[in-house]
Amino acid sequence: MSPLRIGVAGLGTVGAATVQLIEENAQVLALRTGRRLQITAVSARDRDKDRGFPANRYRWYEDARALAADPEVDLVCELIGGSEGIALDLVRQALRAGKHVVTANKALLAHHGGMLARLAEEHGAVLAFEPAVAGGIPIVKALREGLAANRIRRITGILNGTSNYILTTMRETGRDFAAVLAEAQAKGYAEADPSFDVDGIDAAHKLSLLASLAYSCVPRFDAMQPEGIRAIKPVDIDFAGQLGLRIKLLGTARLTEAGLVLRMHPAMVPLDAPIAAVEGVFNGIAVEGDRVGTTMFEGRGAGAGPTASAVVADIVDIARGLRLPTFGVPAADLVERNLAPAEDLVGSYYLRLEVVDRPGVLADIAAVLRDHQVSIESLIQRGRDPEQPVTLVITTHEAAEGAMTRALAVIAGLSVVLEAPTMIRVERA
Amino acid sequence: MSPLRIGVAGLGTVGAATVQLIEENAQVLALRTGRRLQITAVSARDRDKDRGFPANRYRWYEDARALAADPEVDLVCELIGGSEGIALDLVRQALRAGKHVVTANKALLAHHGGMLARLAEEHGAVLAFEPAVAGGIPIVKALREGLAANRIRRITGILNGTSNYILTTMRETGRDFAAVLAEAQAKGYAEADPSFDVDGIDAAHKLSLLASLAYSCVPRFDAMQPEGIRAIKPVDIDFAGQLGLRIKLLGTARLTEAGLVLRMHPAMVPLDAPIAAVEGVFNGIAVEGDRVGTTMFEGRGAGAGPTASAVVADIVDIARGLRLPTFGVPAADLVERNLAPAEDLVGSYYLRLEVVDRPGVLADIAAVLRDHQVSIESLIQRGRDPEQPVTLVITTHEAAEGAMTRALAVIAGLSVVLEAPTMIRVERA
Repeated sequence: MSPLRIGVAGLGTVGAATVQLIEENAQVLALRTGRRLQITAVSARDRDKDRGFPANRYRWYEDARALAADPEVDLVCELIGGSEGIALDLVRQALRAGKHVVTANKALLAHHGGMLARLAEEHGAVLAFEPAVAGGIPIVKALREGLAANRIRRITGILNGTSNYILTTMRETGRDFAAVLAEAQAKGYAEADPSFDVDGIDAAHKLSLLASLAYSCVPRFDAMQPEGIRAIKPVDIDFAGQLGLRIKLLGTARLTEAGLVLRMHPAMVPLDAPIAAVEGVFNGIAVEGDRVGTTMFEGRGAGAGPTASAVVADIVDIARGLRLPTFGVPAADLVERNLAPAEDLVGSYYLRLEVVDRPGVLADIAAVLRDHQVSIESLIQRGRDPEQPVTLVITTHEAAEGAMTRALAVIAGLSVVLEAPTMIRVERA
Repeated sequence: MSPLRIGVAGLGTVGAATVQLIEENAQVLALRTGRRLQITAVSARDRDKDRGFPANRYRWYEDARALAADPEVDLVCELIGGSEGIALDLVRQALRAGKHVVTANKALLAHHGGMLARLAEEHGAVLAFEPAVAGGIPIVKALREGLAANRIRRITGILNGTSNYILTTMRETGRDFAAVLAEAQAKGYAEADPSFDVDGIDAAHKLSLLASLAYSCVPRFDAMQPEGIRAIKPVDIDFAGQLGLRIKLLGTARLTEAGLVLRMHPAMVPLDAPIAAVEGVFNGIAVEGDRVGTTMFEGRGAGAGPTASAVVADIVDIARGLRLPTFGVPAADLVERNLAPAEDLVGSYYLRLEVVDRPGVLADIAAVLRDHQVSIESLIQRGRDPEQPVTLVITTHEAAEGAMTRALAVIAGLSVVLEAPTMIRVERA
């Protein structure tokens, strides 16, 4: 069979690792695909950078979009990044030219997934994105194929290694967010501008794609309101431990009668939940299906090797002739799902209040919660010193998020409450 | 597109659950495959048993082999079991008739996988076996496709839920093997004849199939010497805990210059290893790839729902047009690999010796170990009462298994050693 001719756009760490993987594992790849994988052209800005292979081995384009027009390219790997600009241009032009596209670009698909899936289909091309979610963990394949017999009840995931590393290190060292972030930046685990990672945006991109696979819908990142981990304090990590809980930046997707639930925010999970054991730079995803029960997938969620592994897995699929629609169902069957209003969602909460130690304070707070139909599950009071500040930690039974938010607003206005209350959701499921 | 016509052979719990899944999730399955999945015929011994659907809904065969000859069957689900007899006849005849086969039968493939893979290929049929390994966990797909870019360095797996349940319960309750097995049998978690489960045979079947996917070889179950969990005693479980270890029935596959390593035996693993957290009836598989690092897959390894999920996942693949060779590479490229001699394998060991508490005993035992190039890592002596029995627990540094076995034979013959020594392998990797 003729070789599959590949153009690689973007030769950062992932792009270079992809080229090396295809060259170094050529023999086993040819055995598994029955077809040679041949890199014919590459594109990057800096031609002279040392990437571990000679730049002149492949046709070189300054402008990645030229790959879309190269008749000797059957498949384009888009490893440039960014939801607009050259990446978007390249993917559109490549698909229009009937070339297959493998992309690691979650932002691109989270914003334009529906349109690009349609475009791929119209031109008989495959648009695949295993490397866009959870690095080398084959979770896209698991949802699209391995668990395809199931109605998916729930996806719960730790999808950003940088924030998971920061939370794990904060817990292990007792240091605060700013200090651990600075260290992570120094070590190269976090970007100079860490916003995508620590504000939950990158993880929300990924979650929106997993939900599209599970619930046959256009990605709804636009409607998400991700919350990140900047506000997490060592004191809350400590209290979580005392309560048998662990704080994670947790994504949740499920389908309810009120709409799609698609949430990314810090949450406290039970220490014995499998997801709690996903630590450091690792990613983990628990998928609950109506037949299979809960299956759990764990591995390195980023890095050159794991991401290149996923890029080449998609290439292998295409070389073997797999022709599945981007989100597992034909683009015309993708539904536009509304998100369930956050305020109607029911959950449990951890509250930390800094209050004046004075008789009646607890009664006042309890009354506010009661008035909003929020019932207290447990209470810890730390410190005991009349008229001095004391920390009050409350966990609640299940309550609507709107009620909880309104109750908190009232509590925040009480004169005995000394600083803005902290609220972190508790996910026991 | 025309419907995919399915014949189901065997209507035990998995067969009945498969029929129900296809009927109840018909809509989502049609959406995902673009094709209707239509059950046309079934086969089981007892027609009158209540299975949750009317027996007369489908064409009924007393003899499952008739499915292979039915022109209105495109795909046969073999859910009968057993490595020979009707299951083997049916699969052979169905493949010869060019019908696709999905099987949950690990014994069949462990014994005849090479021959059946060739037969499938000769007749242009797919032979798929996701349900044969680890229930609903899509581990066959992960190895064959999701991690296909990697050279697989090692597979480590807990592949039998019954023995994992027994080991977990023994640890949690302190009861012995016989008592916990009897309870598991009463609850229906273990068969009346538990040998396949507790002697490591079922798990070895599965491991041999995973190794074939990872190392492109004919299944070599025939050359394996699985060891089960009957000899595990509460006292060893206790000592493991004291050493920060946990006893699991552990499968290991890797490829060395000396040959394929394919082992199934009890092993002590570190408490903080992800595999140690796989408890009760769950299965877990850690796959180490040269690019992806270690990925971990966990879920229910048996049961009607999870297994039916995997059966239908394979059906969905076939309905979508996926046509991959059984073990991921063309049957002609499957290699016959020899197993590396067990006695040359290097590992660490836990030894428990019941000895007489007498001066010089420890020196004698240490001398035997030294003479066999086995060096002691740690030692626990429990009890202190001259001339009375005392328990000696030793962990060793790495040593060849042959040396360890020979040393143990000498130690067993010492007059101060009161019963046959216990040896359990320690897997720190």
